[in-house]
Amino acid sequence: ASCRLFYPEAPVKIVRGRGQYLYDEQGAEYLDCVGNVAHVGHCHPLVVQAAHEQNQVLNTNSRYLHDNIVDYAQRLSETLPEQLCVFYFLNSGSEANDLALRLARQYTGHQDVVVLDHAYHGHLSSLIDISPYKFRDLDGQKEWVHVVPLPDVYRGPYREDHPDPAVAYADEVSRVVSSAQEKGRKIAAFFAESLPSVAGQILPPVGYFSLVAQHVRRAGAVFVADEIQVGFGRVGKHFWAFQLQGEDFTPDIVTMGKSIGNGHPVACVATTQAVSRAFETTGVEYFNTFGGSPVSCAVGLAVLDVLEKEQLQTHATCVGSFLMELLRQQKEKHPIIGDVRGVGLFIGVDLVKDEATRTPATEEADYLVSRLKESYILLSTDGPGRNVLKFKPPMCFSRDNAQHVVARLDAILTDMEETLRSCETLRLKRSTGLGCRAAAGREPS
Amino acid sequence: ASCRLFYPEAPVKIVRGRGQYLYDEQGAEYLDCVGNVAHVGHCHPLVVQAAHEQNQVLNTNSRYLHDNIVDYAQRLSETLPEQLCVFYFLNSGSEANDLALRLARQYTGHQDVVVLDHAYHGHLSSLIDISPYKFRDLDGQKEWVHVVPLPDVYRGPYREDHPDPAVAYADEVSRVVSSAQEKGRKIAAFFAESLPSVAGQILPPVGYFSLVAQHVRRAGAVFVADEIQVGFGRVGKHFWAFQLQGEDFTPDIVTMGKSIGNGHPVACVATTQAVSRAFETTGVEYFNTFGGSPVSCAVGLAVLDVLEKEQLQTHATCVGSFLMELLRQQKEKHPIIGDVRGVGLFIGVDLVKDEATRTPATEEADYLVSRLKESYILLSTDGPGRNVLKFKPPMCFSRDNAQHVVARLDAILTDMEETLRSCETLRLKRSTGLGCRAAAGREPS
Repeated sequence: ASCRLFYPEAPVKIVRGRGQYLYDEQGAEYLDCVGNVAHVGHCHPLVVQAAHEQNQVLNTNSRYLHDNIVDYAQRLSETLPEQLCVFYFLNSGSEANDLALRLARQYTGHQDVVVLDHAYHGHLSSLIDISPYKFRDLDGQKEWVHVVPLPDVYRGPYREDHPDPAVAYADEVSRVVSSAQEKGRKIAAFFAESLPSVAGQILPPVGYFSLVAQHVRRAGAVFVADEIQVGFGRVGKHFWAFQLQGEDFTPDIVTMGKSIGNGHPVACVATTQAVSRAFETTGVEYFNTFGGSPVSCAVGLAVLDVLEKEQLQTHATCVGSFLMELLRQQKEKHPIIGDVRGVGLFIGVDLVKDEATRTPATEEADYLVSRLKESYILLSTDGPGRNVLKFKPPMCFSRDNAQHVVARLDAILTDMEETLRSCETLRLKRSTGLGCRAAAGREPS
Repeated sequence: ASCRLFYPEAPVKIVRGRGQYLYDEQGAEYLDCVGNVAHVGHCHPLVVQAAHEQNQVLNTNSRYLHDNIVDYAQRLSETLPEQLCVFYFLNSGSEANDLALRLARQYTGHQDVVVLDHAYHGHLSSLIDISPYKFRDLDGQKEWVHVVPLPDVYRGPYREDHPDPAVAYADEVSRVVSSAQEKGRKIAAFFAESLPSVAGQILPPVGYFSLVAQHVRRAGAVFVADEIQVGFGRVGKHFWAFQLQGEDFTPDIVTMGKSIGNGHPVACVATTQAVSRAFETTGVEYFNTFGGSPVSCAVGLAVLDVLEKEQLQTHATCVGSFLMELLRQQKEKHPIIGDVRGVGLFIGVDLVKDEATRTPATEEADYLVSRLKESYILLSTDGPGRNVLKFKPPMCFSRDNAQHVVARLDAILTDMEETLRSCETLRLKRSTGLGCRAAAGREPS
C-alpha cells in the first residue's frame, strides 16, 4: 500500500479514536488538532449508530426510491440559499469537484477554469489540472486553466495596508478573464475554496467573492464554492464558509465532502435548477453506484443532527475566538508568529523567520510540529512555505484543549528562543558558526 | 436529488434487503437478479458487524499506520498474480479507473488510450472520455481516445463461425494502435472490462487479452483490466475474470470497485512495483481522504472472509452453470432468445426479433423486464440495443431462485408468443394492423 504518513520518520500507530482524541497502541492519548474529517468527533456514537441501523436494514444504490435521500436533500437545502436546491450525492470531495466541473461546462458551454494560486481541489486527473498546488510539480499548466493570485492579505500583492484588497484581488480575476478571452478562451467556472486551506488557511477579504462572481458571470462562467474542508459550521458564525462573504453572495455550485459524513465516504454537489437542467438535457444520466445510498444519507443526517443537538456551530465560534485570542497573545510574545488568522475552528498561525520580510519559517514550523507530537498534540503545517500551523480540529475541541495546546506551544517556542540565544552567545564567544545546532534541529534529549 | 430510477413509470420503493431479496414498503419480497454490488448478499450480518465494530473504535485516514490496510493489501495480493503487489485504496470504481489512467500515463510517458466499443469505465470527466457508451451521446471522441471493436462473437464482425476470433479481434487492436502511431500518437493504456458488461455481457474469446497485451506493450502501453463489475469470484472458476483468459496473462493494472465492499464505498487499484515506482518518482503524493480507512478495509476483509467461509465462488460456478443450462433450454423453446452466454453468475440473454438478422428485440426486452417485476423479480437489460437480459445477482443466488426466474421467464415468453399469434390472426381477419397492441405493449390487466 502506498500512503504518505504524518511524521514519516516516527509514524504514529493510532488504534482508537473518541471525540477530539486519538489513542496509540500503548494507550497514549493524542489531542487531534488536525482531524477535520471527524467533524463531530471521532466515532461519535450517534453517527456510528445511524450507520449501523441502516446497514442492517438496507444499503443499495439510488435506482430505487428511498426516504433517506429525500430527507437528506431536504435538510441540506435548509442550510443553503434557496436557489441551491438540486443535490447530487457522491463518495468523495474529489468526485464532487469533478461533477462541479462537468456541470459548469455543460451549463456554460465553455471549457476553461479560473483558479486561485496554490489551490487544491482533489486527486482526480481533472482536478490536478485545476490545482496549482499539484500541477506545479507535475507537467505544468493546461491551456484551459487560468491562475489568479491568492487573496492573501498577509503574503499576497495586496496586504492589510491596502485600502481595498477585495476590489484589488477581484480586479486581478477580471484581468485574467479578459486576457483569456482576448486569446479566444471561454471561461466555464471560477473555482475556489471558500477559505483556501492547503494554501495556508487564508481568509479572502469580505466582498471578494461577490465581485469575482460579477466578473466571471459577465464572462458567462459560474462560481463554484468548494466547501469540502470548511463547510458544516466549522466557521461558527455561519453554516457555510462562503456566507462569510455577505448575504448578497450565492455561488452557483457548492461542493461538500470530508466532514459531511464524519469519515464515512459521502460527498455532495448542490446547485441551481438552471445548472442541473442544462446537465439533464444532455440525456446522459449521472449515476453513482454508492452515492446517495441509504447508509450514506443516514450518516449525513446523523451528522446534521449532532451538529444541532450539541450546538457545535456556536461552540466553534466560542472556542475558536478563545483560541484565536490565546494565539494572538502568543504573537505578542514570540516574534516567530507573524500572523494569526481564522474564524471558528479554522485557524492558521503563520510562522516567519523575520517580521519585516515575512520569510516562511519552514524548518521551525516542522520542528514545532514534531515537538508538539512529543507532547501528544497532533498539529500539521501547510501553505506554499509549509510554515502555517493549521488548526482544524473536530468540532468538539474544547476551551481546555485550546489552553493546553497554546501552553505547550508557548513552552516550545520559549525553549526554541532560548536555544537560539545560547547558540548565538556561543557563536559570539567562539567566533564560529559551527558546533551549534540550529533552532530547527532536534535537541538532544 | 437527481437520480434515474429503475422502472421510472412505476418505481419501486425498497426499504429492506437480505441475501438475494429486497422488500418494498408493503413487505413484498423481490428476487434481486441485478444487485452485483451486494456481492455476498444484502446486509450480510458479518459484513455489517465488521463495519460496526471498526466504526466504534476508529475511522480515520491513512495518515497514521493501521493494521487493517496492511492486512487487506496482503489478503488481496494472495488472490492476484505475484507481480500485482502494490495497492491503492479509494472510494469508488470511478476513482480507481481515474487513478489507473494517471498511473498508466506516468509510467509510459504517453497520453492516449485504447478502449473497447460501448465500454463504460465510470462517471468522472476523464472516464467519460474513455467510455464510448457515454461520449457517443455527448460531445464526441477526444483525439487521444481510440476505439476498437468489441470482441463480441455473437454481434461483432468476427463471430462463432470465425476460425480464430481472438486473433482477429486482437489484430483490430494492433491495426488501431499502428494507425494511431502513424499519426504521431503514443498509447499509454489499453482499458477493458475483463467481461464487458454495459456492452451486453460479453465474453471475449480466450487468448484475446494475451494477444492484445502483446500488441499494446510493443507500443509502450500497459494493459488495464477493469474488474469493477466482474471480480471477486463472480465468474466462479476464478477469483478474477481476467484469469479466464489463461494462466499466461497478467494485466499491468487491475481496478476493483462495486462488489469489493458489499455496498460500502471501497475501491482498489492493484499494480506492479514498476508502475507504482514511476508514479512515486513524480514526488507528488497520492492521497485519498477516505480511501484505505480502517472501516473500509475492515469491510473489504469481511467480504473476503464471507466469500471463503460460504464458498461463494464454487457456489457461483454451480448455480451459474445450472442457470445457463435452464436458459439454454429456453433458447430451444423461444425463438426470441438469440444467445445465452455467461460464466458463473455473470450471464446475458440476448433477445432478437429475428434469428437470422439478430436485430435487437429492445421493446420486447423492456416489456419482459416490466412483466418480471410484476412477478417480483428484478432484472435489467443492457447492451447497445438494450436487449440483453443481465443476470448479475448477489452471489448467494440459489438453484431454486434460478428455477423460479426461468419458470417465470418461460411463462411470460409463452404468453408474449400467444398474444403475438392472436394479433396476427386478428390482423389477417380484419386485414388491418390497427386495433391490436404489439407484443411489446403492456397487456390489459
